[in-house]
Amino acid sequence: MKIGILTSGGDCPGINATIRGVCKTAINYYGMEVYGIHSGFRGLLDNDVIPLTESSLTGLLNMGGTILGTSREKPFRRRGNVAMSEDKPAMLLNTIHERGLDCIVCIGGNGTLKTAAKLQEAGVNVVSIPKTIDNDVWGTDISFGFDSAVSIATDAIDRLHSTASSHQRVMVIEVMGHKAGWIALYSGMAGGGDIILLPEIPFDMHRIGDTIINRLKKGKPYSIVVVAEGIPTRDGKKAAQFIAEEIEYETGFETRETVLGYIQRGGSPTAFDRNLATRMGGHATELIAQGQFGRMVALQGDVIGSIPLQETAGKLKLVTENHDLIIQGRRMGVCFG
Amino acid sequence: MKIGILTSGGDCPGINATIRGVCKTAINYYGMEVYGIHSGFRGLLDNDVIPLTESSLTGLLNMGGTILGTSREKPFRRRGNVAMSEDKPAMLLNTIHERGLDCIVCIGGNGTLKTAAKLQEAGVNVVSIPKTIDNDVWGTDISFGFDSAVSIATDAIDRLHSTASSHQRVMVIEVMGHKAGWIALYSGMAGGGDIILLPEIPFDMHRIGDTIINRLKKGKPYSIVVVAEGIPTRDGKKAAQFIAEEIEYETGFETRETVLGYIQRGGSPTAFDRNLATRMGGHATELIAQGQFGRMVALQGDVIGSIPLQETAGKLKLVTENHDLIIQGRRMGVCFG
Amino acid sequence: MKIGILTSGGDCPGINATIRGVCKTAINYYGMEVYGIHSGFRGLLDNDVIPLTESSLTGLLNMGGTILGTSREKPFRRRGNVAMSEDKPAMLLNTIHERGLDCIVCIGGNGTLKTAAKLQEAGVNVVSIPKTIDNDVWGTDISFGFDSAVSIATDAIDRLHSTASSHQRVMVIEVMGHKAGWIALYSGMAGGGDIILLPEIPFDMHRIGDTIINRLKKGKPYSIVVVAEGIPTRDGKKAAQFIAEEIEYETGFETRETVLGYIQRGGSPTAFDRNLATRMGGHATELIAQGQFGRMVALQGDVIGSIPLQETAGKLKLVTENHDLIIQGRRMGVCFG
Amino acid sequence: MKIGILTSGGDCPGINATIRGVCKTAINYYGMEVYGIHSGFRGLLDNDVIPLTESSLTGLLNMGGTILGTSREKPFRRRGNVAMSEDKPAMLLNTIHERGLDCIVCIGGNGTLKTAAKLQEAGVNVVSIPKTIDNDVWGTDISFGFDSAVSIATDAIDRLHSTASSHQRVMVIEVMGHKAGWIALYSGMAGGGDIILLPEIPFDMHRIGDTIINRLKKGKPYSIVVVAEGIPTRDGKKAAQFIAEEIEYETGFETRETVLGYIQRGGSPTAFDRNLATRMGGHATELIAQGQFGRMVALQGDVIGSIPLQETAGKLKLVTENHDLIIQGRRMGVCFG
Repeated sequence: MKIGILTSGGDCPGINATIRGVCKTAINYYGMEVYGIHSGFRGLLDNDVIPLTESSLTGLLNMGGTILGTSREKPFRRRGNVAMSEDKPAMLLNTIHERGLDCIVCIGGNGTLKTAAKLQEAGVNVVSIPKTIDNDVWGTDISFGFDSAVSIATDAIDRLHSTASSHQRVMVIEVMGHKAGWIALYSGMAGGGDIILLPEIPFDMHRIGDTIINRLKKGKPYSIVVVAEGIPTRDGKKAAQFIAEEIEYETGFETRETVLGYIQRGGSPTAFDRNLATRMGGHATELIAQGQFGRMVALQGDVIGSIPLQETAGKLKLVTENHDLIIQGRRMGVCFG
Repeated sequence: MKIGILTSGGDCPGINATIRGVCKTAINYYGMEVYGIHSGFRGLLDNDVIPLTESSLTGLLNMGGTILGTSREKPFRRRGNVAMSEDKPAMLLNTIHERGLDCIVCIGGNGTLKTAAKLQEAGVNVVSIPKTIDNDVWGTDISFGFDSAVSIATDAIDRLHSTASSHQRVMVIEVMGHKAGWIALYSGMAGGGDIILLPEIPFDMHRIGDTIINRLKKGKPYSIVVVAEGIPTRDGKKAAQFIAEEIEYETGFETRETVLGYIQRGGSPTAFDRNLATRMGGHATELIAQGQFGRMVALQGDVIGSIPLQETAGKLKLVTENHDLIIQGRRMGVCFG
Repeated sequence: MKIGILTSGGDCPGINATIRGVCKTAINYYGMEVYGIHSGFRGLLDNDVIPLTESSLTGLLNMGGTILGTSREKPFRRRGNVAMSEDKPAMLLNTIHERGLDCIVCIGGNGTLKTAAKLQEAGVNVVSIPKTIDNDVWGTDISFGFDSAVSIATDAIDRLHSTASSHQRVMVIEVMGHKAGWIALYSGMAGGGDIILLPEIPFDMHRIGDTIINRLKKGKPYSIVVVAEGIPTRDGKKAAQFIAEEIEYETGFETRETVLGYIQRGGSPTAFDRNLATRMGGHATELIAQGQFGRMVALQGDVIGSIPLQETAGKLKLVTENHDLIIQGRRMGVCFG
Repeated sequence: MKIGILTSGGDCPGINATIRGVCKTAINYYGMEVYGIHSGFRGLLDNDVIPLTESSLTGLLNMGGTILGTSREKPFRRRGNVAMSEDKPAMLLNTIHERGLDCIVCIGGNGTLKTAAKLQEAGVNVVSIPKTIDNDVWGTDISFGFDSAVSIATDAIDRLHSTASSHQRVMVIEVMGHKAGWIALYSGMAGGGDIILLPEIPFDMHRIGDTIINRLKKGKPYSIVVVAEGIPTRDGKKAAQFIAEEIEYETGFETRETVLGYIQRGGSPTAFDRNLATRMGGHATELIAQGQFGRMVALQGDVIGSIPLQETAGKLKLVTENHDLIIQGRRMGVCFG
């Protein structure tokens, strides 16, 4: 059995641990061969494929990024009726055939899952592993990378507290999350945010202003505001800038913004993410050994299982208003909008 | 409604976050009064009780230890037939009555849960919240403190890798876990341990030696061994010392030991533990508001629920051989004994 | 002897450790009384002053921010010939007189030092302690806060490496430093930056582009660029955005920017900064005990000494081209512009 | 010019950064060739030498340990009058001659410096770079590795505070330092230790007990004790165990010990150490370029310089009673014995 493995979409802590999990299980336990495909699906187009051995895996468990490289190549995307200059799907299949790969492990987020589903439809054996710091892949309770991102964001919020209270300021911090506010919710609650704004929950600037004024009345002339990058703004402003300006207007408080940015997705994964990534990697290999293709590995409660790839297509896992942490936060006085 | 709250047994990251979660929900949302009881059950004996207000809670979310102090006082313990000089149960009830406390929130591990169950039997309204870095409380999927301890232990194992490989040594690290090997299992896997020894799984020194020798043959003349403090040893030796000596004898490899000790239970909790602690604290207050007493808060899948206190009494949650991480570890070549 | 102590200007890790150093030495060793002045010089205007005792100092050593609060109040600033509505200098002196303060310890950066010099000229006994993450106070080898800021920035740069190499991108990170590039220089070198831009050294976009292209030719299709916020830009653009756009234009490389922002000045100080802050605080008290006023505490080689306040006025400590780290960086192939 | 480079003695954070500093400067700037010698002087005996190129250096800046490996081989040591079975000095010289190495860069601590001096006497061109977490190399103000070790130890002491205060205990922590107490002094002061014991300063158990009792009287029923491993004990006991037992006997306080161990020497170096290591590495190459051999690179104030190797031989840099931090600590109430 020859496995090809690729990583696609944004990088995220834990990818290398997953690669290690897939490969060690495949090579050590099942005696399979594993081939690394460079730069996501682009490596299949370019026939950029190398064998992976146990010695390729040293040091991977706690290393950030992906040793295979990644890209946002979407080989099945069609541009209207215009004929593409290259027949990318054919090129993909050609590489897979030529290399004799029996199946492809695709590690990626929602975009990758779509491509993986199409690859499966095109007759290739595919197993997918979800990977996203945003935690918005439908079908798995948690994706690896999320705990690391939350951990980094929480550490940053901790740091802002000293400036907020020393200067009696409102500090606004923007964390990742275009459509889903998971990082904002979890880091906001863990960092003691007073106001937490998610793309999923509409907000009202008056209520936000009142929260800040009420804190002042209680002897706390400073506040921490955690916003997801994907909240609606005006005039093309970025989330943090928009909210900071509105708060200054609404309350007169000196307000400062921080955009956490790429730091959230880099560096060594947390212990939690390393174990989740390892387990998911191992389970992917097991699915291959059992001939179960067209599936995405998923954390279900405390168990690693899998679901059909097509079930995940086009779906996003969003935060809902009745999430435990939101209900609990509201009871403790946190303003979610 | 007047709530008394106490923390008992070993300290653990996240206790203060739980206290905050209980109090903020009680004071802010339900309009209850909360009283802090000092030094665990000893504070009920000594009538050492003070009111907690919202301003007592500033800075608690990320603070290690417990602001209430703790002790290992077990007021219901009987020593044979010997009459005790003090009637401790009566003293407890007296303080509770005199202070007008309608219920007691007990935050603690297995020992505390036993005392809490007896307090309930004695007619006091009790709600318990499990707290242990060891993760061995029966009935909850995870206890807060565990993720922090695993995180610290994993960081330590990461550091040992450099010395192991630079000096071509075997490095043995002892982590906490008297009866349950959860910390050893999770930090061992996250830290890339080659050999992981738990109290629950018998080990064989020959197999351990073979693992080390086989790594040498593969060009890796060093190994990382993670042991729980509770594994069986001889001659009253501590776990790390015993295993290090046996490995040197078995393999001739230069072997060094590290005992991680109290560092594992101190300092700021991880984001994961802060959120778990906050949710558990909030849920405890909710149980009180609903008049559901005699229960322990528990993480069940992704939901915070509760179980009857007496169900947990005398039970320990141990690692079993069919645990996902053990199966996965074995497939990747990790030796569990 | 009654000491007043205040913190002014931007907050910075180590201020609380300095306050502790001043107070413990004063109270414990010299038997002086210490009074904390709130919100910098504003607290002298508002008579917002409270006694500090040993118990006020618990937990200060590793706490970020300043428990005294800070402001950018400049009481001696004159606005043209317009008569001020309030005579601030008189208000200051009045508070000092009324409270019976024998001297004032001013902890702050360049702005604070100017005000402190004027306060001394106005007949008040002043001792100053330099405090700035920017490390640009003239007369001291290092200011506390700098090592912490460098440490946080280096950690962030470490994280960007994974994204840079996984995505084959140029990552630009902007760190603090309006006029002085110390943080950019030290974190850039410690983080392995390929291009490091400081306000003190003119840069050439062609040379920067060449550096990136040359790395590509050596098989490294990614680069890390560290820029100080104070480098010259065009069209009012921020440093990181400007440089990222220029690099994309110059090289065609996908380039992403990160602005580190307030995270650099928050949170617990490094061990280095704690010790430096403690020593400086202790030395300030010693100067007071010896009646040496009008001086700024300074690190001189490995010794804590002091210099006359007026010597520092209006001077900035800037990076020079012949700095050891720049010469060394250039030899190793780092581009400084 | 062909340079050989080796690392000898205990590993320490920053060694790889130094290797990178030597090599990048040599290869990139001076066009020299560099050869890595494995496992310290043993690699010269075994002719275990490989060329290093720029691509060998990727990722070294923040990597712990040493990629060259290390050993405690002392090739010039004589065992009485007994003729050695092997003429190690001749073997060394043979490898150096055969490989055509023009000089050897020796990175190591006091033991390595002795060997390096003998190698120089034997006619080999040698440049040494001091490396020790203990900071006890004579002739340099600071050695790299020290700041990292202090940082790790301080972090551990921070963690012990929560347990100490929650349980009202005395916590004893043992840090490295056989003959010199630098780590204990710097981490003890940075971590807020109440009692700090160094090999250089005799201690008195009564005074230690009094310190703990006096803290109790001031309402602080807990203490942190930081001890260097090299303090005198009785009955072959380790430092922490001995002191903990004595304190329990002296005060009746529940006392717990932690031995920090190998964690102090592993993992990624601090930003401070990375820059110091880089500068020292670069300076070593410069000495070679200038033909200045028989010297040890040294930090002198804020400048990197060098001193003759024989000046350092047999000397240790110890803490003296009049060290700034000790004087300052005493004034703040810290007990040094």
